[in-house]
Amino acid sequence: MAPFEAPSFHDIRSAAARIAPHAHTTPVLRAPELDVSAGASLFFKCEHLQVGGAFKFRGACNAVWSLGDEEARRGVVTHSSGNHGAALALAAQTRKIPAHIVVPEGAVAAKLANIERAGGILHRCAPTQAAREDACARVQHDTGATLVHPYADARVMAGQGTIVLELLQQVPDLDAMVVPIGGGGLASGCTIALHALKPDARLFGAEPAGADDAFRSLQRGERITNVVPHTICDGLRATIGEPNFAILGAHRVEVISVDDDATLAAMRLVWAELKQTIEPSSAVVLAALLAQRERFAGQRVGLVLSGGNVDLDAIPFIRR
Amino acid sequence: MAPFEAPSFHDIRSAAARIAPHAHTTPVLRAPELDVSAGASLFFKCEHLQVGGAFKFRGACNAVWSLGDEEARRGVVTHSSGNHGAALALAAQTRKIPAHIVVPEGAVAAKLANIERAGGILHRCAPTQAAREDACARVQHDTGATLVHPYADARVMAGQGTIVLELLQQVPDLDAMVVPIGGGGLASGCTIALHALKPDARLFGAEPAGADDAFRSLQRGERITNVVPHTICDGLRATIGEPNFAILGAHRVEVISVDDDATLAAMRLVWAELKQTIEPSSAVVLAALLAQRERFAGQRVGLVLSGGNVDLDAIPFIRR
Repeated sequence: MAPFEAPSFHDIRSAAARIAPHAHTTPVLRAPELDVSAGASLFFKCEHLQVGGAFKFRGACNAVWSLGDEEARRGVVTHSSGNHGAALALAAQTRKIPAHIVVPEGAVAAKLANIERAGGILHRCAPTQAAREDACARVQHDTGATLVHPYADARVMAGQGTIVLELLQQVPDLDAMVVPIGGGGLASGCTIALHALKPDARLFGAEPAGADDAFRSLQRGERITNVVPHTICDGLRATIGEPNFAILGAHRVEVISVDDDATLAAMRLVWAELKQTIEPSSAVVLAALLAQRERFAGQRVGLVLSGGNVDLDAIPFIRR
Repeated sequence: MAPFEAPSFHDIRSAAARIAPHAHTTPVLRAPELDVSAGASLFFKCEHLQVGGAFKFRGACNAVWSLGDEEARRGVVTHSSGNHGAALALAAQTRKIPAHIVVPEGAVAAKLANIERAGGILHRCAPTQAAREDACARVQHDTGATLVHPYADARVMAGQGTIVLELLQQVPDLDAMVVPIGGGGLASGCTIALHALKPDARLFGAEPAGADDAFRSLQRGERITNVVPHTICDGLRATIGEPNFAILGAHRVEVISVDDDATLAAMRLVWAELKQTIEPSSAVVLAALLAQRERFAGQRVGLVLSGGNVDLDAIPFIRR
């Protein structure tokens, strides 16, 4: 395998141009009540209003439109608990090429429905990292499709980084940003873009305590891969990628770990005050900020609401 | 009592200038899945993201800032099942004057909390039109406060009509608009503004079948006041106002009546596809459009999502 090359800021700018015909410029929303609770000025970047209901469309779309024509024709393949899968299927649709999505058992029904609705070809597998990768390799072998990894992929990272370009146009004077961390694709793209455009602003990752491999990896200075995820945040169960770990470490990104109760309380707050139907994986950013509010006191903070694909028959903050 | 004078288009323009320092320009959102279901291009005007979580702030704010200084000092009073009450309290706050809110028993807890949070002074009464009006009269007598009626008030109507000015700047080429009807303040302001700016575009009212006094009144050509409301749409239980009835009749506004099941299905669709936490009274507009989709086929339709103050402990489309 060729050595991994992290995307440059130039790659992120190119990604922005490449996805512009297909992706939405998502709005930034505010809620005075949340500012009061936080003691800071919060700017919520609404990626749950992105095509497919999650930021993942940016990276998937950049990857799909980075392919040569010949390569593209054979299609794309990925493994995903949901949002990246739906995003890749939607991105493939914009280029009229097939998308194979390997889905672990136990994925959220609303997300599977999104993949199928987008014309993705589902391949089911056991919910382990190894089973996902095996199934992907099989599809690659059988079809010649190009793997678009959900996060350990420079084209994907570059696509996710376009959020920062957009957010800083909407809110130029941010002191900090908070993004959720699963495999680290979003955080990688965002830290590269933020470092280039606003080197004084800090990027924080928010991670569920029950899947805190990024937190522990960065603390120890060594990538930990044996965490068995146990969290309600179904989008954040992946293990941090190798290149992602390297990029976050090099940029000294700090991770704040929060337990699911705090995340559910934050999710409810966003629904009630911001009136946005976000999924648990989005709510970790507010939970992280509220958990360490003294660090953000008086600051202008951008928070990425990463997705809104929640199962309305099983809203997790509602006791049944 | 002086004869009622409907607001002119000029009054609506003045209202827009008057409320501009205090009110939000709310975003317009779209969802391709909903366009497909409807067979039309839908533009959702997000008044649930207005100050206080409902369009009501526009009318209340215009009324509060229309008062002379002397009059203003004595405060304002209204009766409201919730959103208008909170809106008036918030508007009064912007002018640092007292707001007395008469609230019928049985109002939604989230809405009462909003009134109190905004510094409104609560006065409880029985849930009938007569009890509300009596309680208001008592407060007026005791305090000298000015009554700001939730809908039968020209200043309130003019404030609500500013939605149309904004929406047509955001989406100039609309064929039709759909707004919820309770007392008819929103519909009155909107039809006057729409008639002035875009006389070919039609305004439709959407009303719960269990509180269809506007529907029946306009059909019969005579105001019906004896409907006992029975609907999940807590914001639409009021009886259509006398001046409102006259304005809607003169503008030939057509009302579409929908049952609560259709409204709940539409509410769920908005949560799932548009990712917006709206209250039942907002969802009637989509329910009405879907109930008569052949009339809107291929058209560009603006739908006002009127409010988002829903009790998350009792989400009505979720069976417990």
